Amino acid sequence: MESWKYWGISYFRPMIYVTIIGTGNVSYHLQRAFSKAAGVCLESVISARDMERLALLREKTTNQKGSIESTQSRVYLIAVSDGAIAEVAQRLKGVDGIIAHTSGNTPLAVLPEDSRRGVFYPLQTFSKNSVISFKKVPLCIEAGRKHDLKVLKELARQISGTVRTLNSEERKILHLAAVFVNNFTNHLYQVGAEICTENKVSFDLLRPLIKETAKKIESLAPFAAQTGPASRNDQQTIENHLGLLKNQHHKDIYKILTQSIANTHAKKL
Amino acid sequence: MESWKYWGISYFRPMIYVTIIGTGNVSYHLQRAFSKAAGVCLESVISARDMERLALLREKTTNQKGSIESTQSRVYLIAVSDGAIAEVAQRLKGVDGIIAHTSGNTPLAVLPEDSRRGVFYPLQTFSKNSVISFKKVPLCIEAGRKHDLKVLKELARQISGTVRTLNSEERKILHLAAVFVNNFTNHLYQVGAEICTENKVSFDLLRPLIKETAKKIESLAPFAAQTGPASRNDQQTIENHLGLLKNQHHKDIYKILTQSIANTHAKKL
Repeated sequence: MESWKYWGISYFRPMIYVTIIGTGNVSYHLQRAFSKAAGVCLESVISARDMERLALLREKTTNQKGSIESTQSRVYLIAVSDGAIAEVAQRLKGVDGIIAHTSGNTPLAVLPEDSRRGVFYPLQTFSKNSVISFKKVPLCIEAGRKHDLKVLKELARQISGTVRTLNSEERKILHLAAVFVNNFTNHLYQVGAEICTENKVSFDLLRPLIKETAKKIESLAPFAAQTGPASRNDQQTIENHLGLLKNQHHKDIYKILTQSIANTHAKKL
Repeated sequence: MESWKYWGISYFRPMIYVTIIGTGNVSYHLQRAFSKAAGVCLESVISARDMERLALLREKTTNQKGSIESTQSRVYLIAVSDGAIAEVAQRLKGVDGIIAHTSGNTPLAVLPEDSRRGVFYPLQTFSKNSVISFKKVPLCIEAGRKHDLKVLKELARQISGTVRTLNSEERKILHLAAVFVNNFTNHLYQVGAEICTENKVSFDLLRPLIKETAKKIESLAPFAAQTGPASRNDQQTIENHLGLLKNQHHKDIYKILTQSIANTHAKKL
């Protein structure tokens, strides 16, 4: 597919030229995905701290304006920490292309109003040690202009099978819900591991259960999948468990989640 | 393998005859697993409410004593709710074989002291709608007598690749930790779904994230897998999220888990 770029001709659909700013986990996984996509040319990956190269970027695209066919697009993806997005975007102002950030919790509006701004948010948890099939990562797209939305969608479809247009408010909600099902869930694994370690029981025995708990949600609604003492109001077991917990933080978490499950089930039954 | 039973001869290892009392989810999945196991003959499944058949059971085994070769074993698995185990066990008193319950949170001691008592606890979440590969379900075994432990282990190895001997205290701890990684985790999926529904955003977009969150734990420790605003002390995002949450219960859960993640990471860094 490199030949497309070499000859400067695109036969079927325009090639999309992508530059990524940022070198963290999101950047790493996007690079991997783009490198396998036929219609994407990853031009460069620039550290947000590399001010010099960021400046060069603007110069370069200004000089090259028109040297790449007009049907082809340039997209600058900002994959840095939420707090640094606005500043990086300011530095990119004036480049020839779409400037899109990759954050769930950041509105489109933090990008300069007079730029071709957009959002390209992959809804997934990324760690460098975990290989991800990007085809199954939902990509949430937003753009200030209709044409740019189309370009970002095309780019997203090159790497993912699930592409959705969401506005900043919807994306925020999704990011908030993601904190519950990912960050908080992982912390419950942590608490489970701490309980095992404190009592010299192997945490490994819980791994198949963790896997099945998530697998159930592929076909069942969370309410239907709920089991355990709280959902059947088994006070005896709940008291046993509270007696076993020595760590006050673990006790507090146990109480509040047990109460919340009981409320949910009392409401629906 | 049925022929082994028909001729009353076992060439390689003794056939284990199993009767299950109870007809819930655990019973259903055990039945499925035993029906595929070469060295197990599932004699019958009896509802705990069927007093008449339970009485017959005692009579029958007393009459048949000696009619099955002495190398063969009979195991009665009690797969009923925790509160009903002691009563069912009382009714079984006097049968010829091992009486074992299948509960995580119930000590061996609730079974009659003068019986051949044991525990056969599959550490997994069972729903009738979800097909489970029993080979990967850890089975936690306990017994009052050495020989009975051996029989229960043999039975467990017929259906699972992970068989562990745990005492009642260790099993309780494991059951408690399981409440965190399964019951509570599933409730966080529920909260995530409620947040999505309240704000008309599709919960389906979170399913790949749920799957990956669990998958990470196959190779990473929970501490290493932790991401999100709480672990990087991103107060801005945390405040945004609390502002978005309208349900006070959701807010309380958010606060306590965020604080707990922050504590965990402050301690270890």
